[in-house]
Order: sequence, then structure tokens, then C-alpha cells
Amino acid sequence: MKQSLLFTRTQKTAPKDEVSKNAQLLMRAGYIHKEMAGVYAYLPLGIRVLERIKKIVREEMNALGAQELIMTALQRKELWERTDRWDDEKVDVWFKSTLKSGGDVGFGWSHEEPITDMMRQYLSSYRDLPAYVYQFQTKLRNELRAKSGIMRGREFVMKDMYSYCADEAKHKEIYDATTKAYLKVFERVGLGDRTFLTFASGGAFTQFSHEFQTLTDAGEDVIFVHRAKKIAVNKEVMNPEVLAQLGLKESELEEVKAAEVGNIFSFGGTKSEQLDLKFKDESGAEKSVILGSYGIGITRLMGVIVEIFADEKGIVWPEAVSPFPVHLIALAGGNKDIEGEAQRIYELLRDNGIEALYDDRDVRAGEKFADADLIGIPTRLIVSEKTVAAGSVEMISRKNGVGTMVPESELVKRLVG
Amino acid sequence: MKQSLLFTRTQKTAPKDEVSKNAQLLMRAGYIHKEMAGVYAYLPLGIRVLERIKKIVREEMNALGAQELIMTALQRKELWERTDRWDDEKVDVWFKSTLKSGGDVGFGWSHEEPITDMMRQYLSSYRDLPAYVYQFQTKLRNELRAKSGIMRGREFVMKDMYSYCADEAKHKEIYDATTKAYLKVFERVGLGDRTFLTFASGGAFTQFSHEFQTLTDAGEDVIFVHRAKKIAVNKEVMNPEVLAQLGLKESELEEVKAAEVGNIFSFGGTKSEQLDLKFKDESGAEKSVILGSYGIGITRLMGVIVEIFADEKGIVWPEAVSPFPVHLIALAGGNKDIEGEAQRIYELLRDNGIEALYDDRDVRAGEKFADADLIGIPTRLIVSEKTVAAGSVEMISRKNGVGTMVPESELVKRLVG
Repeated sequence: MKQSLLFTRTQKTAPKDEVSKNAQLLMRAGYIHKEMAGVYAYLPLGIRVLERIKKIVREEMNALGAQELIMTALQRKELWERTDRWDDEKVDVWFKSTLKSGGDVGFGWSHEEPITDMMRQYLSSYRDLPAYVYQFQTKLRNELRAKSGIMRGREFVMKDMYSYCADEAKHKEIYDATTKAYLKVFERVGLGDRTFLTFASGGAFTQFSHEFQTLTDAGEDVIFVHRAKKIAVNKEVMNPEVLAQLGLKESELEEVKAAEVGNIFSFGGTKSEQLDLKFKDESGAEKSVILGSYGIGITRLMGVIVEIFADEKGIVWPEAVSPFPVHLIALAGGNKDIEGEAQRIYELLRDNGIEALYDDRDVRAGEKFADADLIGIPTRLIVSEKTVAAGSVEMISRKNGVGTMVPESELVKRLVG
Repeated sequence: MKQSLLFTRTQKTAPKDEVSKNAQLLMRAGYIHKEMAGVYAYLPLGIRVLERIKKIVREEMNALGAQELIMTALQRKELWERTDRWDDEKVDVWFKSTLKSGGDVGFGWSHEEPITDMMRQYLSSYRDLPAYVYQFQTKLRNELRAKSGIMRGREFVMKDMYSYCADEAKHKEIYDATTKAYLKVFERVGLGDRTFLTFASGGAFTQFSHEFQTLTDAGEDVIFVHRAKKIAVNKEVMNPEVLAQLGLKESELEEVKAAEVGNIFSFGGTKSEQLDLKFKDESGAEKSVILGSYGIGITRLMGVIVEIFADEKGIVWPEAVSPFPVHLIALAGGNKDIEGEAQRIYELLRDNGIEALYDDRDVRAGEKFADADLIGIPTRLIVSEKTVAAGSVEMISRKNGVGTMVPESELVKRLVG
């Protein structure tokens, strides 16, 4: 895409009321727009990053055998009353409104209840189980405070998956497979080495739930990590008994701040009982379906990636989630020949399936470099008098600034390979 | 995808409280789930149809040069007060709620206001214009009645585009280009011959707006069509003066029911003035930006397609929006050889990039055919003892029931060609 056509522009400063680094950088670079605290629109560059993250998550969910669907924002009061989660005293993040036709309506902050209720139509026999479904849903949560940019929003995108199993053995199998799939997702987006499977509170249903915590000072959680074993314990459940149970020694753990990018959770049969999701087993006996719940914060993940990799000049995207693989920069200074060469390289890339953001603007080199640093595309290609004279293109890494001259004939191979 | 793994099942009857044909069929076939009146979830088959429609619309919007973004559901009261559209007396479909941190908040039933406000950050000079952006957004509208299935929802997906131009000439150019792009969209989804560019009320800003009306008895509008000229006039503006102005004779028009699948609309400079979106022209003079608004109801389009093409046996998808191009049906009756052949055909299709819904279930032929009729995939492939003996596959059109034996060696060519 030609940068001259992109309607967004970079900005030197972020609005004063924005305190988080991720939102400041993303707003300045033109990825997001702040509608109100904790509520952000995603502009053309931003939507590209979101779609790349979603694609990775979707591939791993499909590989598990999960089926994609999309539930609704509008929620029935009576459903949430049955599980005692309608009352504001019980759930303090509801947005609620009134139907013109009469009655209260809620806005989806979570979707276990409607998905489980919907499943009553399809799951009635052991033959129908297991079933697992997922969605990318915009969640609405009436947070009192929202100061972490896109890491904690009042409106945000979550991938949530739900599994329905006949017994605990099958549930455990899917739970463990999903754990592996989640670790693969975080590996693929570039957070593998700093994301820890973390033992956390299991609530009313199990002793533990499992969180996926990524080490960052911007995180709101405190966890104790065991780097060698690549696991962690959330501070909320950290005590000598738990450590003994997990075979961990306190002296081997390190207290760090982290952001929860995913979590997985067992509901046992409780929610199915409340919502009357029963099935008949092989002997004809009626049983409650075992429910598991699995979430990844898609927009939060984008924020965490910005927080972790950004440097003093701007954003640094891992290749897997960058809005474009390549930022092509023409330094023509009005020289039509150089402009023509840059255009030719742009078309060469396009014809080889490599999408570039192409800075064809008539602005000075310093401004182009500063913008490119802020936008953070991992690979930069420079076309200038110097490179054209050498029959090459200069390839510069955003991460470490190292540049090399690449002969034009080798360019596509170097980028694809 | 193997049908035995699909968690949805077909149903013989639709819920009694559902009166619209589109929702009845889509619910029975497992495409959608009704959460409440006018609020539907999209299940695995349904999400596939939606994505195919969105892909066609996205391609045509990108071809225009429009840039995709995604705004927010949560809306600022003060923004809508400035255009006098916050008050329930003025806009009767608002869902509103209260922020925990204080103050009212609305839920997006439309997005002209926030997009135009956001654009103030990026459009300040004639050099920044024109700009046009679009989104696929879930709109929330507090409709008093919702009885048309997915054709009029309280929660529905719309593609909305907004154009920002320096003057009326450029605005007219984009308006006309978008008109052509819209007609192409309706052509591509299979509604070309029955969708009419329709003159409708222009509201406070222009004499006319333009609607795209698709002929169907399930529609809520009445229009007067001129079949030869392929245009129509909405009943709401139909009078002798308008006819004279458009050069139409009443005797040549036919009164019909239709569904509005798209509309385009000029706001002139009014909304930009209200929201303070100004730009400096070549002479440095400050002017208001000219705003155009362009919508296509994505979920409504899906409903209209069902209404129009369905027959007494179920849904009939046009190829362009079918959840799968092919429904492969194994009639093995327990014969392992036939099962093996069907599996081999499934893999042959997959290896050639043809996604099939593969009915590998152990149920009788009559049930498979009835389900396939209801689900409505345009091309059915039968693998049975008879077809295997002939070294062929039977290819049956869902639309007219005509079947032909196709030698296996020609199958892929016939499907792709």
C-alpha cells in the first residue's frame, strides 16, 4: 500500500490523558483511535495487526478441531439469573439497558451462559460429545478504571472457546491439548520465551485455573516464576501448601510483574446443571455436561507485544504480527529515476506476493525514517541514488538497525526465505 | 469438513415464535441460533456464508480505494448531542447505559458521528482529501418490533463506508463510483437481476438518496420499478413532479414489494459543520468537508438471499455465497469399500483446493438428502455402489435437481471450470 494514500498520519505526541505506553505509541503511529477511556477504534494499520493475530489463533483453534461461531452482544437477563451472575453485586462490569418492547437486556461481558444454553439444542447424547466451539467476540465491560490502553478495555476483542465433554477424562484431554495450542499461539506471535503457564485460583469449581502470563512491567498481575521449569504461580494462590503440592521451592522462584494474555478454566458440571444442559450416557442415564472455558485477549495481546518490544524510537513488531512484512522507503529527493526504481521494486514485491507499505511521500528522509521507526515494521528497504547505483536495495532491521546491501536479483529470495 | 463432526444438527421444525421464512430455514438448517427477537448468533455454517458475503463486499470496497477500519460499539453522548441525534425523541433506536465511572454512554446504531470526529485528527488540508473508509460493524438498534428474521435485527452486521471530499464534484465522482461498486456486489452475490437502484428520500441534505432495493415479498418497502431502465422510485417520494423530473411515466412503472439491501446518502457539509471537520483549500480558506454515507446490510443480504432462492425443500444458495461449494454425500450403507471411495473423493477435492461438506454420517439416504436439501449447497456429489461401479460420481444441482454422471477423472475440472 502506498503511504501517500493512507489517511492516517503519525503524530509527535500522544494526548495528555493517555498514560499507557502501548496506547500512546499506537495512537501516535496511527494504529488506533481513542473513543473514550478503555475504548479504542482500530484504524487501517491496526486492523491489519489484529487480523494477523486472529489468523494465528484461528489456525491453532481449528487444528484442535474447534468450530468457529459468533454469539451476540445482547444478552437475556433470565439466562444470567439462572447462574446468579445478573446482579451487579455479583458481576460488577455489566452494561445494561432496557428493550423498547419491555424488559432488561445486558451486553455481553462473557459468553459461557448463552453458548451453553444454545448447546442444549445440539447436545443430548454421549454421541454428540465432545463438542468445542470458539468465537472472536467484542466484549463490553463496564470497568471503573481503564488506564492500561488496549491491555484492559471497556470494549475489547477476545477469542473464547468452550468445550463440552461427557466425562472428566475427556475434559482433561481437551484441556491439556488446548494448553499446548495456547503455548504455540504465544510462541508464534513472538512471546514464547516470556510467557509462563501459571497456576491461579480455580474459583468454586477446581483448585486451580491456568493462566498464561507474559512478563512485562506494564502487567497488572504479580506472579512467581520458575524459569527452569517454565511455570509460574500467581501471587493470589501462592502459599507453602500450594508450593509443596506443585513440587516447587520458594527459593527457586522469582517475583515479577506480568500480563495475563490467556486463561483456561474448568467449570465441572455446575454451569451445565444450572442451565440444564444434560446428556444421556451409553446406559441411558442422564448426566451433566462437563464445561471448560478458554480465553485469549486478542487486543490485549497486541498491547502486550507493543509494551515488550518497543524502544525509545517507537514500536517494533515481531514479523508474525506486523501490519506489513516490509516497509519500502523511496529516498528520491525529486529524482524521477529513483522514484521509478522504487516503484519498480514495489511492483516486484507485489508480484511475488510480498505486501509492502511503500513510503512514496514527498517528504524529507529524516521524517520518513522517524515515521518508519514509530510504525515499527521489522524489515525496511531503502531505495536511493546510492542503492540504485549499486544495483541493490538496502535492507535494515528495525530491531537492531543493522543494514546490508542486497542485490536486487536476490531481494525476493532474501525476504521469502 | 466432515458432517459427522459438525456440532449443529438439522431440525424438522422451527420454533413457533419465529415467523419469518429466512430465520425459520436458517435455524432449522443450523446456520443461526435465535438469542431473542431480532438477535441471532451465527453458527459454523452461518459464519461461512457471512464471511463469503463480506469478502465480496471487501474486494469491491478495496477496489474503490476505501480503507478498512473498525469503530466502537460504545458511543460518547456529547458527540451525538452536537448533531442533535442523542435524544430518544430524535432517534428512537438507541440502547443507552451508564458508565461506572459516571455519565451516559450509547451503543452504536450508526457511526457517522464518531468516524467524522475521528477524521478531524487526519483531515485538515485539501491535500488530505478525498478520504474514504469503511467497516464491518455490529450495529445495535432498539427496534420495537423485530419480526423479519435476520432481515431486520436488533443486532446485525452492516458494512458502512464514509467519504470525505473537498467539493461537490469530487463527492459526485465517488458517489457514482460507489453506486457502480454496489451494483457489482449485488450482481456477484446473485441478486443482480432483481436489485434496482431506487430514488428515495434525501432527508434534510439532498433531494434524493439512493437505495438498492431487491424485489421480494418478504421486503418491508414498496417501490415502483421501471424494468427496462432498471431503476425504481420508492413509494415515499413517488409523485407526479418526481416522475417528471426523472423522466418516468407512471404507466411504465410496476408497484412491488422490496427489501433495501443498500443505501447511499449525501450529507453535504452539514454534519462536518456540526462536528467541526474543516479543511483549508488551496487559497488557505477554511471550508467544511463534504460527507457521503454508504451502507450494505450484510446479515440482511443473507436473509434476502434465503427468502428469494429457497424452495419447499429448503435453502438454495447461489454459488458465490454458499458455505461450501460442494456437498459430498456417501451412500455406503455400511459397505467399507464405498466408504473408502467417498473418503478418497473427499481427499481428491481437498487436494485440489475444493472444500466440501462431506456427509460421512451413518444415517439412511433419505435423511441425508433431506438434510442436503435444507442446507442448500448448490452442487451435490453422490458416491454410491452404482457410481463406484461406473467409475463416476453423480453430480446433482440443488436448484433444479438435474443429475449427471461425471467420470472421476473429469470431476475436478468440472467443479473448478
